[in-house]
Amino acid sequence: MSDKPPVSQQSLRYDATQDSVWIIDQTQLPHVLVERELKTLADACEAIEAMWVRGAPLIGVTAAFGLYLGLRSGAVTTPEVNAAVQRLAQTRPTAVNLQWALDRLSSILIPVDVAQRPARALSAALELHAEDVAACAALGEHGAVRLENLWHTKCAQAEERGESAPSQLNVLTHCNAGALATVDWGTALAVVYKACERGVPVHVWVDETRPRNQGASLTCWELGERGVPHTLIVDNAGGHLMQHGLVDCCVVGSDRTTREGDVCNKIGTYLKALAAFDNKIPFYVALPVSTIDFELADGLREIPIEERSAYEVTHISGLGDDGTVRRVRLTPAGTAVSNFGFDVTPARLVTGLITEHGVIEANAPALANLQARLSQA
Amino acid sequence: MSDKPPVSQQSLRYDATQDSVWIIDQTQLPHVLVERELKTLADACEAIEAMWVRGAPLIGVTAAFGLYLGLRSGAVTTPEVNAAVQRLAQTRPTAVNLQWALDRLSSILIPVDVAQRPARALSAALELHAEDVAACAALGEHGAVRLENLWHTKCAQAEERGESAPSQLNVLTHCNAGALATVDWGTALAVVYKACERGVPVHVWVDETRPRNQGASLTCWELGERGVPHTLIVDNAGGHLMQHGLVDCCVVGSDRTTREGDVCNKIGTYLKALAAFDNKIPFYVALPVSTIDFELADGLREIPIEERSAYEVTHISGLGDDGTVRRVRLTPAGTAVSNFGFDVTPARLVTGLITEHGVIEANAPALANLQARLSQA
Repeated sequence: MSDKPPVSQQSLRYDATQDSVWIIDQTQLPHVLVERELKTLADACEAIEAMWVRGAPLIGVTAAFGLYLGLRSGAVTTPEVNAAVQRLAQTRPTAVNLQWALDRLSSILIPVDVAQRPARALSAALELHAEDVAACAALGEHGAVRLENLWHTKCAQAEERGESAPSQLNVLTHCNAGALATVDWGTALAVVYKACERGVPVHVWVDETRPRNQGASLTCWELGERGVPHTLIVDNAGGHLMQHGLVDCCVVGSDRTTREGDVCNKIGTYLKALAAFDNKIPFYVALPVSTIDFELADGLREIPIEERSAYEVTHISGLGDDGTVRRVRLTPAGTAVSNFGFDVTPARLVTGLITEHGVIEANAPALANLQARLSQA
Repeated sequence: MSDKPPVSQQSLRYDATQDSVWIIDQTQLPHVLVERELKTLADACEAIEAMWVRGAPLIGVTAAFGLYLGLRSGAVTTPEVNAAVQRLAQTRPTAVNLQWALDRLSSILIPVDVAQRPARALSAALELHAEDVAACAALGEHGAVRLENLWHTKCAQAEERGESAPSQLNVLTHCNAGALATVDWGTALAVVYKACERGVPVHVWVDETRPRNQGASLTCWELGERGVPHTLIVDNAGGHLMQHGLVDCCVVGSDRTTREGDVCNKIGTYLKALAAFDNKIPFYVALPVSTIDFELADGLREIPIEERSAYEVTHISGLGDDGTVRRVRLTPAGTAVSNFGFDVTPARLVTGLITEHGVIEANAPALANLQARLSQA
């Protein structure tokens, strides 16, 4: 572990002294760290649409604050609130948490007296914000116990073999399931950060995660900011590293998980799960329970996979020698492209689901049990 | 299949009327097609060192012509020939075919009278050139029979199910094992081109193949030139396509294959082999027998894997909006990178080895049998 303590740079922060809402413009990372103040409902809509903020949990929280900003400007009547909700819902129509957050705020605001709505919207947004931080921190703690156990086992095995003590626990991750995808901590990276706090010397292999390169740009950036040792690799490299004993554990996030434990996550996750299974390496998925879809059973058949723009594959942007961010074309002109955004990792390849309610097995009985606990709570 | 016939644009061509040697500068592809004349031994060395030519077979043939160019300029004595051989051997010290081609030319030239050496060097280089074309064409034919059979099976299965006839046979390939890696035809892509000639409607899924993007830049370019339908995908996507029945077969090349059938190829090949195995999709490796290393058994333990520059991962070049090729940085400054160039696919995941002597199983008995046939020939 680095001696640099984790920095709590939240992806969205509310400054109560100034009554101001700030987000990190993630499209500028890793080259420039730009914080932007969201002053109006329109600002919040733009932040989501232009992907200054991304990651389902963070989008939901941003929308909640956007609704508050609309109310703060005087648009407090029920038709005005409904219009604001509708406007926000259209920013990223596929993001499940967005609709969930808006539904929750609506149901809180509509019964309240018009004059009290701005204050109530702020308290509800802050509540959502705090809940997201708490859920991520809690799942991080549960996962960190697993990493701590793996570390103790690794040390004990080295000692048994008469080898020198290992220097680090190597965790491979894909995409950015970090603080930047949530308010703070993240999901997969919460596990890493909490393990670091427990003194486990974690080193992270970061898949660059083509085509949008969230690993190379966002995960490398946030691990660097928080002082966690890490090494960037191309998405092709993980299998080779696993074959050679250079990966102790995989931890990834999830966009949607079925009641049978199939995990939908960023495209390429399935390939890493296959390699982990082939090399007997634990493969964990870290997720808040809000991303479990108990309506679905067979992830491969039932989860629709979004196809995205060819442009994401044919073009890429980076920092030019002159210090400006430029976009270049990588392919012959007119090359046909297929660009599925996600894939499904079958439950049989998943070692465990790390949730804020504990680590459970990725199978129907374990998930039914979790569902029962949630409905009793 | 496209109605555009394959174009025989050889990666290295000798123009007998002008006594001139021409290569395609592959570093300019896919944005510009530049042919360069190699006029001297130094030109040939630069072509290999600067990777204007790449691919083990093509490097060997280029070196042979480089030796001829040295002799043509009057450097014909035995010390001069030895010095030229040594200079060429140093251009890419890890390329096995380079040393093999140089050894072969040396053994032909040294016994010959000094005055006859230039002409003998030319004939030996042309012989190597012709052999490479013939070997690739022959292995292409053997592999094409497999694709033809897969196509017939796919059509028959659709008919049995009462479905409409399929429109294409989907072949996934990784990196560039094409005409650009050899003199002509290629290895994996020879199989595709020969199947097209037989009337199989092949469509190729092209892995972009990070970090050097040989798929996106070279394979897409040459398939486009030869009129073969193809679609570019990121390296992360192949598993998802296989899960959804969108891949009928994988065909890749090989840099080195052991006597037990383990295949060393471009990093990421192993991940695709795992996904093919998991989805019961044939996974073929196309290779000239010269790339089989009968000295080695266990590829994972015995084949050393080259680590390449971090720069290949942190930076990328492409065509800017202004029409010039530019290089941009993708990562935070100072990000640590690991960049292994190859991985090893265990024989258990390989359906068959497609060679110029036929398709054989990837196991020790089949390879011993091939070795016996080769030693008798």
